Amino acid sequence: MALKSRMVYGSLCSPATLKVLACLFEHDIDFEFVPVDLEAGEHKQQPFLAMSPFGQVPVFDDADIKRFESRAIIRSMAHEYGKKGEELIYWDGRKQAIVSTWVDVEDHKFEPPALKLISELVNKPSVGLSPDQSVVAEAEAELAKVLDVYEARLSKLKYLASDDYTIADLLHLPNLQALLGTKAKQQLFESRPHLIAWCFDILARPAWAKVLEMQKMAQA
Amino acid sequence: MALKSRMVYGSLCSPATLKVLACLFEHDIDFEFVPVDLEAGEHKQQPFLAMSPFGQVPVFDDADIKRFESRAIIRSMAHEYGKKGEELIYWDGRKQAIVSTWVDVEDHKFEPPALKLISELVNKPSVGLSPDQSVVAEAEAELAKVLDVYEARLSKLKYLASDDYTIADLLHLPNLQALLGTKAKQQLFESRPHLIAWCFDILARPAWAKVLEMQKMAQA
Repeated sequence: MALKSRMVYGSLCSPATLKVLACLFEHDIDFEFVPVDLEAGEHKQQPFLAMSPFGQVPVFDDADIKRFESRAIIRSMAHEYGKKGEELIYWDGRKQAIVSTWVDVEDHKFEPPALKLISELVNKPSVGLSPDQSVVAEAEAELAKVLDVYEARLSKLKYLASDDYTIADLLHLPNLQALLGTKAKQQLFESRPHLIAWCFDILARPAWAKVLEMQKMAQA
Repeated sequence: MALKSRMVYGSLCSPATLKVLACLFEHDIDFEFVPVDLEAGEHKQQPFLAMSPFGQVPVFDDADIKRFESRAIIRSMAHEYGKKGEELIYWDGRKQAIVSTWVDVEDHKFEPPALKLISELVNKPSVGLSPDQSVVAEAEAELAKVLDVYEARLSKLKYLASDDYTIADLLHLPNLQALLGTKAKQQLFESRPHLIAWCFDILARPAWAKVLEMQKMAQA
């Protein structure tokens, strides 16, 4: 019997999908990418809903186990496919606790204002709309407080959870990539030296370059 | 040298604190509870901020490692203190993936509308304010869709992640306890037979009774 290949159902416009792809490339995992047409609402209909009951991309189908929720996918992928000496998560309970904390910080603290800013500064202009300046100011102020904590953290450690790159860092990639293409780069990032060094470091991961290459090829 | 005791800094009014306490009792872990005065803003000042840089309760201080983010605390506690045959999380990567998915469902799907409803139906009336009926209707509609997925899931499995009780179930306790004391009980819960059976089952855990007892004693 042939081994069924691993499939990712998602969209190259979805940050959550890009995070999962970055994690797959970090682990050199072979997979097939199946685009889901979000504009047509394919994710809110059957058969997609049978895999992802809340209609979210991406879905990772590995040996017929269909997983949704990107952080859960990434966490378990890092456990299952971790390469000796280059693990992106720890099996040791105490070290894992710290990774888990910073995974939840990305989820609860970093991503919400980051997505608000990206919506105003990237998505709206891309369809000819003007950003709402009051939303921008509020999101910038919210994100600035979070980035102050990051700057303090990254002045002591090379990465958010330890001196090694982990999934806690990886989860930031798509939103950092988008934000550094906006005016937020100077105001929010370059003003914090440890933060901007961390951004450049993680955005230079070969696994992330492969994700950007996939996006470029899809747009071509 | 005496073993330093484990400390929980938190508030018995905070659902996140109650979740961590429920997990401690599940694992029969001795700890000392240190109340943080949220009304006085103690969590937004030093020395608390040195433990929890975003000013969130609870903090779990275990052997001088100070952890914040309740789900990260619970996840790592379940790994470190799991009792053979009664684990609330799995070390097996594939089983753990499913627990992780449903932990994130509680985080992203269940808790946001649950907290909105609790704010309108419990917190506002407790200080003499009337609920905003349009917020109630919107939160009820949002939660109803989530609970449809739960009902389907719980018609196939005894608990959300498996046939065993896991941290994915435990995380629901404080908000379920609050919601079942409101009109949502009949409309949203009793109309879904597998869901309401699951609620009664998990709310009857002896560990949860101990949390409620702590609350009662603090109020006395």
